Amino acid sequence: MNERTDRGRFVSFEGGEGVGKTTQVKLLAQRLSNLNVKVQITREPGGGKIGELLRQILKQSSEIDPFCELLLIFAARRDHFVKFIQPWMGEGYIVLCDRFYDSSLVYQGLLRGIPIEDIMELKRITIGDFEPDLTIILDADIDVSISRIMERSSTNDRYDRMDRQEYSIIRRGFCQLAEIFSFRSVLINAKGSVNVVSSRIWKEFDKRIKFQPIINPPWLE
Amino acid sequence: MNERTDRGRFVSFEGGEGVGKTTQVKLLAQRLSNLNVKVQITREPGGGKIGELLRQILKQSSEIDPFCELLLIFAARRDHFVKFIQPWMGEGYIVLCDRFYDSSLVYQGLLRGIPIEDIMELKRITIGDFEPDLTIILDADIDVSISRIMERSSTNDRYDRMDRQEYSIIRRGFCQLAEIFSFRSVLINAKGSVNVVSSRIWKEFDKRIKFQPIINPPWLE
Repeated sequence: MNERTDRGRFVSFEGGEGVGKTTQVKLLAQRLSNLNVKVQITREPGGGKIGELLRQILKQSSEIDPFCELLLIFAARRDHFVKFIQPWMGEGYIVLCDRFYDSSLVYQGLLRGIPIEDIMELKRITIGDFEPDLTIILDADIDVSISRIMERSSTNDRYDRMDRQEYSIIRRGFCQLAEIFSFRSVLINAKGSVNVVSSRIWKEFDKRIKFQPIINPPWLE
Repeated sequence: MNERTDRGRFVSFEGGEGVGKTTQVKLLAQRLSNLNVKVQITREPGGGKIGELLRQILKQSSEIDPFCELLLIFAARRDHFVKFIQPWMGEGYIVLCDRFYDSSLVYQGLLRGIPIEDIMELKRITIGDFEPDLTIILDADIDVSISRIMERSSTNDRYDRMDRQEYSIIRRGFCQLAEIFSFRSVLINAKGSVNVVSSRIWKEFDKRIKFQPIINPPWLE
């Protein structure tokens, strides 16, 4: 049921708040699109109707129990996975996903204290042995992240209201994941201009992910 | 975290649709209340704000993925457990719960085909080693259940729209659970008048659950 399809590719973007994930996802998608490659952008939690509904619950409930939160996140992940990610991959898309299960390991595991083995059990139940083809982990100084968050005017959810110690746990957590999951992960220095970081990501992407532009037969041109 | 409190008691009611659970929960609560015993009625999925919201999602989404449904049910169960069941038990209530995790084993496991060990893993992650003090499993002929469901005019959700084969899987499943969990379960014949069934339940309850009426000290009378 959770078998992965070999046609598409799945690339997750991870890292703490303010490292520039959302911007970089868009830039990579644009670059691929310019090369005539089929690409889909998505994010977690979200995607389907259930995902978006849960996103609201999660963002608003400041006193939600950590285990309840974790189960809701995996429910949304499952919905997103079967309704969007799997079908897109089946159609040969390169799927770029803003956060995936590594975020649960860091936020619900290291930050909220849920045992890592419980989260890995949930991961197994939810998506089986599926793994990203590549995980781009963006890493920046806490000060860089915080100043970027401050610049955002519209966001004001609880994930953006954490103290320096929490930022430090999160940053260290993602760096550890880059080592543990080195077979699929690459740590990218997120300091510098948007274009500089984008070039660093492209270099790693281009090295690790095989992709093919869509070449329409002449009669479809 | 999931340690059970020894003060209250937890009694779950299980069985297929139309066996009379809801009615019997109310009758037992009334009887205990008449004896001046502190009693709380509750049901799954439901209870908290999250539970009620998820109840709506689950009842309405006919094409929901079984794993997503299972994760949502356990998220609601966790919320219900930490926000209601544990506090009530801490205050010494007898908690009567219309469905608990046995229903997941039967509906999501036997009926929808999710491996039982995955459900037991989720149970462990969600409520640890907590078990009901007593589970009343109501059992009735499929024809009795179906005719009772037909009498209900207001309910029309997907759980009531199953065929005979499904009813049969569910009935057999609950009977198996009564054996597997014999240390906490009792199978009650649900055929007969409401009062007859209620007396059968009371007999088993009275035999197995120690309870004490609230005796106010004379100065509070």
